[in-house]
Amino acid sequence: MQRIEHRACFGGWQEVYRHRSDTLGCEMNVGIYLPPQVTVQSCPVLYWLSDLTCSEQNAMTKAGFQRYAAEHGVIVVTPDTSPRGAGVADAEGYDIGLGAGFYINATQPPWAEHYRMHDYIAQELPAMIEAHFPATDARSISGHSMGGHGALVIALRAPGRYRSVSAFAPIAAPTQVPWGQKIFRAYLGDDEASWRAWDACALLANASERLPLLIDQGDADEFLATQLRPDLLQAACVATDHPLTLRLQPGYDHSYYFIASFIAEHMAWHAAALVRPSDRASGWIGTG
Amino acid sequence: MQRIEHRACFGGWQEVYRHRSDTLGCEMNVGIYLPPQVTVQSCPVLYWLSDLTCSEQNAMTKAGFQRYAAEHGVIVVTPDTSPRGAGVADAEGYDIGLGAGFYINATQPPWAEHYRMHDYIAQELPAMIEAHFPATDARSISGHSMGGHGALVIALRAPGRYRSVSAFAPIAAPTQVPWGQKIFRAYLGDDEASWRAWDACALLANASERLPLLIDQGDADEFLATQLRPDLLQAACVATDHPLTLRLQPGYDHSYYFIASFIAEHMAWHAAALVRPSDRASGWIGTG
Repeated sequence: MQRIEHRACFGGWQEVYRHRSDTLGCEMNVGIYLPPQVTVQSCPVLYWLSDLTCSEQNAMTKAGFQRYAAEHGVIVVTPDTSPRGAGVADAEGYDIGLGAGFYINATQPPWAEHYRMHDYIAQELPAMIEAHFPATDARSISGHSMGGHGALVIALRAPGRYRSVSAFAPIAAPTQVPWGQKIFRAYLGDDEASWRAWDACALLANASERLPLLIDQGDADEFLATQLRPDLLQAACVATDHPLTLRLQPGYDHSYYFIASFIAEHMAWHAAALVRPSDRASGWIGTG
Repeated sequence: MQRIEHRACFGGWQEVYRHRSDTLGCEMNVGIYLPPQVTVQSCPVLYWLSDLTCSEQNAMTKAGFQRYAAEHGVIVVTPDTSPRGAGVADAEGYDIGLGAGFYINATQPPWAEHYRMHDYIAQELPAMIEAHFPATDARSISGHSMGGHGALVIALRAPGRYRSVSAFAPIAAPTQVPWGQKIFRAYLGDDEASWRAWDACALLANASERLPLLIDQGDADEFLATQLRPDLLQAACVATDHPLTLRLQPGYDHSYYFIASFIAEHMAWHAAALVRPSDRASGWIGTG
């Protein structure tokens, strides 16, 4: 891993690394915020998945999570949103190809060769973080829009892997909205039954773990009714008796101003799950 | 004034307006954060001046001031850094022309026609803000690098106009460093005596007001020794017995990660001067 950014931030370090991904078959950038606590103990990790068109930079520069990560002693990892580089397939449109990996494993040409963002986020990246940084194996996951979909799906597919999950304005029912249908048909093919393995609402029906979901959604979000559909996720949670906190925030849109306004509460939600009394007791210093 | 952005943020609104500036002779964008308190009372105003290459957008998206502006009930105005548009002079280099107004009034062609950022920031903009928004005439000023220079100079030139001033990594002695010398020679001409009216260190010698200065400076800032020179400002404050709090922050660089890390303390510094007990008592609601 090659460190390409290293900036002091809230007593810790906001860094960016460049590394080879075997899963994706390309070089990737990944942002890592190391809170001040890493100088004396290993810390748990929150994975943040970003939206269409984003890179590892957007959340680092705009979400304002570092203050709270430093307070709680949580590492925050902000990966890119698709494979990148020469030879990686792309297509016309901001909502397919580069910047639009959708956190799934593609099965169709030309996407299948590199577009395996699910396995990168769920497996390769945590293994790398836990091997190369002072990180424990306590993990949580969150994200925005396409990344909110990614966080929900990745957590629901792997019971026990994440201690907590949350999302901002997630694409909550991708098989039932235009963004998801376009991507799933391209990346997964015409067999719509195969799409259900990547749809949070469908996965809830078979969830073996009752991991509570925290979702914030702005009611002035221009994509709410057409692309996001938290109402369908709410119905799926009701049908399966799955714990959900869904908060409709009046006046908020789809931007990082919305995320920044509520990131403190999501960080506290994850910290409550990640930083347990037993973890604190094992640290070198008292952090309670 | 035409509103071109309107986004809910920390219970208030982050907005951008486009307006005609008679001082600059062009159309300008300006960011305005309206805290939630403006729905019930007029609020004081902090002017934030940004660095070379920035627009009204940088501080809005990266500094994270909105949380604290909402807590304290302070409007934050983030202007652009130079005149813009067809007919506005420019030159090669990021450090002259567009994005590099330097918050002074140019006297030399081709700059003199539009580059009058001092008068725009100090006079036209506050008059407009106080006429069109629920703003009191209580004003403070801060900024970063070129904008830190601008904040110090604008406050020192107008005793009594600002209740408080602070800066992040300001160009503290522009007549003595390459950035300032290049700009002053271009915008003001070869008479170096005329430059002193726009240099914080020189202005301190004749300051009739002892407005305390708060300055944060990263000690890993790549421009510290060559362009910023807070040591010269410190010497000028010592020589004139001017109150200065200069904090060298270990490990921090010149980026917005540095600003975000300490913006809470600057907002509290300004709020202490802007939101006085007598102001609180005149509000419709208790804000103590």
